[in-house]
Amino acid sequence: DKDTAIAVEHIVLAAAAKGLGTCWIGSFNEQKVRELVGAPEHLQVVALLALGYPAEEPPPRPRKPLTEIAFIEKYGQPFAPPADPRKDRCKS
Amino acid sequence: DKDTAIAVEHIVLAAAAKGLGTCWIGSFNEQKVRELVGAPEHLQVVALLALGYPAEEPPPRPRKPLTEIAFIEKYGQPFAPPADPRKDRCKS
Ligand SMILES: Cc1cc2nc3c(=O)[nH]c(=O)nc-3n(C[C@H](O)[C@H](O)[C@H](O)COP(=O)(O)O)c2cc1C
Ligand SMILES: Cc1cc2nc3c(=O)[nH]c(=O)nc-3n(C[C@H](O)[C@H](O)[C@H](O)COP(=O)(O)O)c2cc1C
Repeated sequence: DKDTAIAVEHIVLAAAAKGLGTCWIGSFNEQKVRELVGAPEHLQVVALLALGYPAEEPPPRPRKPLTEIAFIEKYGQPFAPPADPRKDRCKS
Repeated sequence: DKDTAIAVEHIVLAAAAKGLGTCWIGSFNEQKVRELVGAPEHLQVVALLALGYPAEEPPPRPRKPLTEIAFIEKYGQPFAPPADPRKDRCKS
């Protein structure tokens, strides 16, 4: 699953670089898809990817702040990037 | 797993864009990692990612040809990109 997700996401980003939009689809009837494309039973269908020229350019959706999703040293200890990275590097 | 793999791979690519090398690590003692970072039991540790400035720049590893891994319409029918895409588009 992870290997495939990595490969699919590279397709997503390569498509985006060419102005194409995609939509990850993880919820589908695996047996039906297998029949449709004639894939053998021993293969697992991990994902479908819709691909096309986007009709709209929606603004980026809100994201959680980094301090809420990134921790430093210990789980729960919010990671805050140094305000000025150069300052941080010259502590000696 | 897929959501996390996507997020981690974006970190991999962002790191690469800054000249940093990474190594996906999927094989580890989950309980030990959880203890080390103090993560609660209800969270699954999906991956570790080693990050650093690369000491070497190995040449790209050999890749399977596209015709071996990409099929068109049906599983097993090798996808060969058209030699001249413009020709292909002007069939009318
Ligand atoms: C692993 C994965 C599976 C998804 N499966 C579906 C799906 O079955 N149907 C669907 O409409 N969208 C699916 N999506 C798309 C999401 O609903 C969402 O539109 C997309 O991740 C973009 O949202 P974001 O801008 O908040 O990242 C999936 C996304 C991911 C990452
Ligand atoms: C999901 C995943 C898990 C991995 N787990 C490990 C690991 O546990 N230990 C390790 O040394 N490398 C691990 N790797 C790294 C691979 O062994 C390999 O070095 C990397 O994918 C680059 O190889 P490539 O150039 O052929 O793509 C993992 C890679 C992926 C994608």
